[in-house]
Amino acid sequence: MFSSDDLSSLRRNPETGLVEIIDQTLLPHQLQWVNLDSLAAYCHAIEVMQVRGAPLIGITAACGLAFAISLDSSSKSIEHAADQLLATRPTAVNLRWALEQVRSEVDNLPPEERAEAAWSRALAIRDADIDNCSRIGDCGFEQFQQLTAKDPSGTLNVMTHCNAGWLATIQWGTALAPIYKAHAAGMPIHVWVSETRPRNQGMNLTAWELQRAGVPCTIVADNSCGHLMQSGQVDCVIVGTDRTASNGDVCNKIGTYLKALAAAANDIPFFVGLPASTVDWRCLDGDSIPIEERSGQEVLEIRGVSSSAGYLNVSIAGSDSTAANPAFDVTPAKLVTKLITEYGAFQATDAGMSALRKKLPEHLA
Amino acid sequence: MFSSDDLSSLRRNPETGLVEIIDQTLLPHQLQWVNLDSLAAYCHAIEVMQVRGAPLIGITAACGLAFAISLDSSSKSIEHAADQLLATRPTAVNLRWALEQVRSEVDNLPPEERAEAAWSRALAIRDADIDNCSRIGDCGFEQFQQLTAKDPSGTLNVMTHCNAGWLATIQWGTALAPIYKAHAAGMPIHVWVSETRPRNQGMNLTAWELQRAGVPCTIVADNSCGHLMQSGQVDCVIVGTDRTASNGDVCNKIGTYLKALAAAANDIPFFVGLPASTVDWRCLDGDSIPIEERSGQEVLEIRGVSSSAGYLNVSIAGSDSTAANPAFDVTPAKLVTKLITEYGAFQATDAGMSALRKKLPEHLA
Repeated sequence: MFSSDDLSSLRRNPETGLVEIIDQTLLPHQLQWVNLDSLAAYCHAIEVMQVRGAPLIGITAACGLAFAISLDSSSKSIEHAADQLLATRPTAVNLRWALEQVRSEVDNLPPEERAEAAWSRALAIRDADIDNCSRIGDCGFEQFQQLTAKDPSGTLNVMTHCNAGWLATIQWGTALAPIYKAHAAGMPIHVWVSETRPRNQGMNLTAWELQRAGVPCTIVADNSCGHLMQSGQVDCVIVGTDRTASNGDVCNKIGTYLKALAAAANDIPFFVGLPASTVDWRCLDGDSIPIEERSGQEVLEIRGVSSSAGYLNVSIAGSDSTAANPAFDVTPAKLVTKLITEYGAFQATDAGMSALRKKLPEHLA
Repeated sequence: MFSSDDLSSLRRNPETGLVEIIDQTLLPHQLQWVNLDSLAAYCHAIEVMQVRGAPLIGITAACGLAFAISLDSSSKSIEHAADQLLATRPTAVNLRWALEQVRSEVDNLPPEERAEAAWSRALAIRDADIDNCSRIGDCGFEQFQQLTAKDPSGTLNVMTHCNAGWLATIQWGTALAPIYKAHAAGMPIHVWVSETRPRNQGMNLTAWELQRAGVPCTIVADNSCGHLMQSGQVDCVIVGTDRTASNGDVCNKIGTYLKALAAAANDIPFFVGLPASTVDWRCLDGDSIPIEERSGQEVLEIRGVSSSAGYLNVSIAGSDSTAANPAFDVTPAKLVTKLITEYGAFQATDAGMSALRKKLPEHLA
């Protein structure tokens, strides 16, 4: 599993040297790899969200800069390419960070050495992400093994939300990495995929990537999740996080908080899978995290496919309707059973957060 | 408000004497009244869910039987018509009850007196439903007034789920009745309408009927409800119930339980509006209520409208996907603040349930 580039969101074609990505806007209806053969193609991929998820955006941008340097390694060209790439998603912290990594690698080199150094750095970021995700997977798999210790042959039913899998990273994913590790190790596992309205990343991306990896899964309406937990059909929940406060509060896709409440009410472990880089140590708690309000059209319209009309957006609400669309919510630390990181599993308590911070390299702490 | 038949799901045309219903399958995109001018039209309306909601189904069936008796008042005709109507939704308790009401009224009358007696009984059931809903509305409105006592000029933000309004009854509704009463009394009120996946009755029906009555409302994804409560944007929640156990456990549309958990976690009152007839006194608690599992296609497909292709169903999931679709969940009594009935407001405790039962007429207790 994952030994090839088959279950990967971004790969480099060994013959052409070009980077290829999956156009995620077409999923789950079509799998189409896109050749990134110009700086414009890189920018377009990030801008229209053919690639999404912080790690994948960052790595795509880093490769884009390396690509531009291969064509023209002058400082002026590097400056221009970096500006273009940064403008695609100006608020994406990871994108800016990845571009800076490549630039700092090449800035003091003579132009003829820059291309190789840039590619080397970009691909190193990619490898580090895969490695981190793999370690999150191993750590979460240990937690799963503890849950199944009494009945190792029984199926572990895991619930997840949104998409924190290999489509959001390069390989493995964060929240989904432990599931892939468990599946690869032969643990019987089944995943409840909540559709994740309004953008349906669970239904569109998570179900698709689990199916592709051969992991049994069932899509459910987000509304079903409480009942499934109450009726004993869920052994644990694992989700990702966009940002984690220094007290362990977790900001993730809207709806995560409701799952955490239901898990707590039914004594079901609630895990959060994350690379340590998503902990914002300057953020004291979830109350101080601003919640992005997105367009209500995302609630009132949906994209689908019909046998007669092909792919299209349809209005699902009455024409006079208005909708509100907060994109994230905050799950208080007290509802989180364990934070699953590449440095191990930690409780979302003051003691747990301190222990995590002590294990981090200087640039992350 | 509601003085005319304008905000009503079923009305009798005073000129033709025919019953007319709103075809709810076309909402919210089209408002179309359907003339029920044959027994087949009545059966079709119930079968394809042009009418839905237990009270409305029952009243439609009662009118259908009266209509059939007007054409042929022989005992054989009555038997045939009742069988036809019952077969449309064989498990609908209210439908069976309403047909029995009409039959017991006419069975001992000479054929020439049966039609008038049948219509009289059917319309009495209709009037009683309107009256019950109005009393539920008055009772809930008192609860709202208590919430706004400190700041009567501020807007009361009420969250609801699914559709328990006049489209599910005849007028007023159950959960929505207090909202209409408050609006009519000039209380500033705003409703958060959760879309209610997978069938979207909130988005399709509740938002539509609130808009038609001029009540300000905003649609949100079900996933948003926890965040809205956590961030102080919700003053109370009110929902309906399909069946209430004798201990106060409430079985309602899937997703209700998650709202109840979030309300309890954020100290927000959680009300349930219900006619006392939905309490099943033989049912000891929610654990013994079987949860209907509906087709997964309801999750994987959705109906919408596009400017180019008109009304159509689209697949929103990948073609290899499977879905589970439990239709209801159980909210434990301890999460319910008050049961709002036509006999007053009661706590969902042993003492509260006893007090309610003592107020009921014999056939309901």
